[in-house]
Amino acid sequence: MAYPYHMNINKPFKILVADTFPAQAIKQLEQADFAVSNKPHIQPQELLEEAHQYEILIIRSKCRLKTEFFKNPQKLMLIGRAGAGLDLIDLEAAHEAGIHIVNAPEGNKDAVAEHSLGLMLSLLHKIWASAQDIRRGVWDRNKHTGFEIKGKTIGLIGMGNMGRATAQLLQNFGCKILAYDRVQMLQGLPSYITSVSLAQLKQEADIVSFHIPLDEQNYQLVNETYLNAFKKSIYLINTSRGEIIDHSCLLPLLNAQKLLGIGLDVFENEKIETHTPHQKLLYDQLRQDDRVIMTPHIAGITHDSFEKIGSVLVQKILSWRSSLIQN
Amino acid sequence: MAYPYHMNINKPFKILVADTFPAQAIKQLEQADFAVSNKPHIQPQELLEEAHQYEILIIRSKCRLKTEFFKNPQKLMLIGRAGAGLDLIDLEAAHEAGIHIVNAPEGNKDAVAEHSLGLMLSLLHKIWASAQDIRRGVWDRNKHTGFEIKGKTIGLIGMGNMGRATAQLLQNFGCKILAYDRVQMLQGLPSYITSVSLAQLKQEADIVSFHIPLDEQNYQLVNETYLNAFKKSIYLINTSRGEIIDHSCLLPLLNAQKLLGIGLDVFENEKIETHTPHQKLLYDQLRQDDRVIMTPHIAGITHDSFEKIGSVLVQKILSWRSSLIQN
Repeated sequence: MAYPYHMNINKPFKILVADTFPAQAIKQLEQADFAVSNKPHIQPQELLEEAHQYEILIIRSKCRLKTEFFKNPQKLMLIGRAGAGLDLIDLEAAHEAGIHIVNAPEGNKDAVAEHSLGLMLSLLHKIWASAQDIRRGVWDRNKHTGFEIKGKTIGLIGMGNMGRATAQLLQNFGCKILAYDRVQMLQGLPSYITSVSLAQLKQEADIVSFHIPLDEQNYQLVNETYLNAFKKSIYLINTSRGEIIDHSCLLPLLNAQKLLGIGLDVFENEKIETHTPHQKLLYDQLRQDDRVIMTPHIAGITHDSFEKIGSVLVQKILSWRSSLIQN
Repeated sequence: MAYPYHMNINKPFKILVADTFPAQAIKQLEQADFAVSNKPHIQPQELLEEAHQYEILIIRSKCRLKTEFFKNPQKLMLIGRAGAGLDLIDLEAAHEAGIHIVNAPEGNKDAVAEHSLGLMLSLLHKIWASAQDIRRGVWDRNKHTGFEIKGKTIGLIGMGNMGRATAQLLQNFGCKILAYDRVQMLQGLPSYITSVSLAQLKQEADIVSFHIPLDEQNYQLVNETYLNAFKKSIYLINTSRGEIIDHSCLLPLLNAQKLLGIGLDVFENEKIETHTPHQKLLYDQLRQDDRVIMTPHIAGITHDSFEKIGSVLVQKILSWRSSLIQN
């Protein structure tokens, strides 16, 4: 890979940390001789203007880095994404500008996997629906007979860090775990996961959970046609990105009992104040339905993952610097 | 064991099925030459009067079988409990009357284990609390930062069928699993479970889950003193029996942050219409608190466990009959 080699790598690299980042990770960077500017509260516009004066930028999801951001990278060599998804970064433009990108899915894969499983259990075991009833003063045992994961077939779409971590948790549930990944990242797949075609997954799955990145190919991948191609009625879990699902199909499919329950951590438009009247109506209906659990894009964020993401990202930054020096 | 051997065991045994029971299990009993009276809607009083005319009674939790029920057992030889808990049966009186009791914890241990884990994940990952907020129209990512099971220490109280099944599910979560059981039922404990004293469990646990039967010794076992003896602030899960906990200590301990979250499937008094004013006030406060999830005693009841309980109970009834014939 070619880097903009206009600089003296014996001078300490400057890092702009543009969002909350663990104190321990910042300390590690400083001890490794980086010059860290810790500006967790920097405004998006300021970030876009200042970033090019640093060799390294660490971001979470404060703003999009579009094509124009990469037009004149100046000092910028590396962007570290404190999280997994890279959908806010124009990866092609970054690549053309010779800017290296690292992310930290290893840091929050367990958080996402546990959250996905929590949504599954809440739906299948009627934890969410029956607890809502109790809150309303209704105690009804018979209404809330659920299903077990044991004996079911789980279809995992996407076999990167998140999908594999989810499968790992499910290993002792006595369920069948089917996996489909469009890029066949299926090397070293543990024996408890069965790699299948998407068609076969749709034939067999009782529960489907999405663990794929948002990109052009996956944008609104999941729509009425996609879901109706499942042979059984299914439970749907999404902790990846909201935009992979056409949300307008969800309520009709719930009412047709094609979908038995929906657990969503991510949505097409997570800025509630910018909802169109159509989106507002749709989300108002979804969030009042006891067959639907919605959490506010928190699957990947735990106190634990916040620390782990920091430590993974620091290691990747250190490795990248070593590789520069060795070249 | 001595049975009331006044009968001709070549005549088919009569079975009163006094609650809903799987059609498949009833068919199996009939095929095995039992004379089955299937009366799922029989009233408690009728049940208590008629049961002694049958050799076998199958019940769920329609009524208590107190001392007087066992005074004159007449034909009754075996009671099959379609579930796990035997707290509604006076076991001592049954034993004195020579009546054999069988239950079916193997049939719903997976249901209970999955439900317990679902409650844990809902609390730790703030699934319940954040989804409640979304229902109220509040989208707040920062408020709902949770914790992972990974890296935590889980204390399981009770190592019977339920406790072991829960440990099995947790096996790949990267957590430490400590187990305490008063009767040291710890033979054949898998290597991922560490058997400890109650004192050590209280030193180390981040999450405690109860899987013990209700009896005199366990009645209101868990009170303020018991919980304050934990070194850390903890998450509390109970899917066993409500009466093992003195519920009046829960809110004060939540407010003192000794308890970080509470997941309850069972309560001291599950007949809501018979709540005392004190109980009503207490439960009204608990069920409005986002740190508390309450489900209506459904952990052990799933569509799957309904069938499995039936099949386990039929096998135990068949074995019992074989043992009679062999003796």
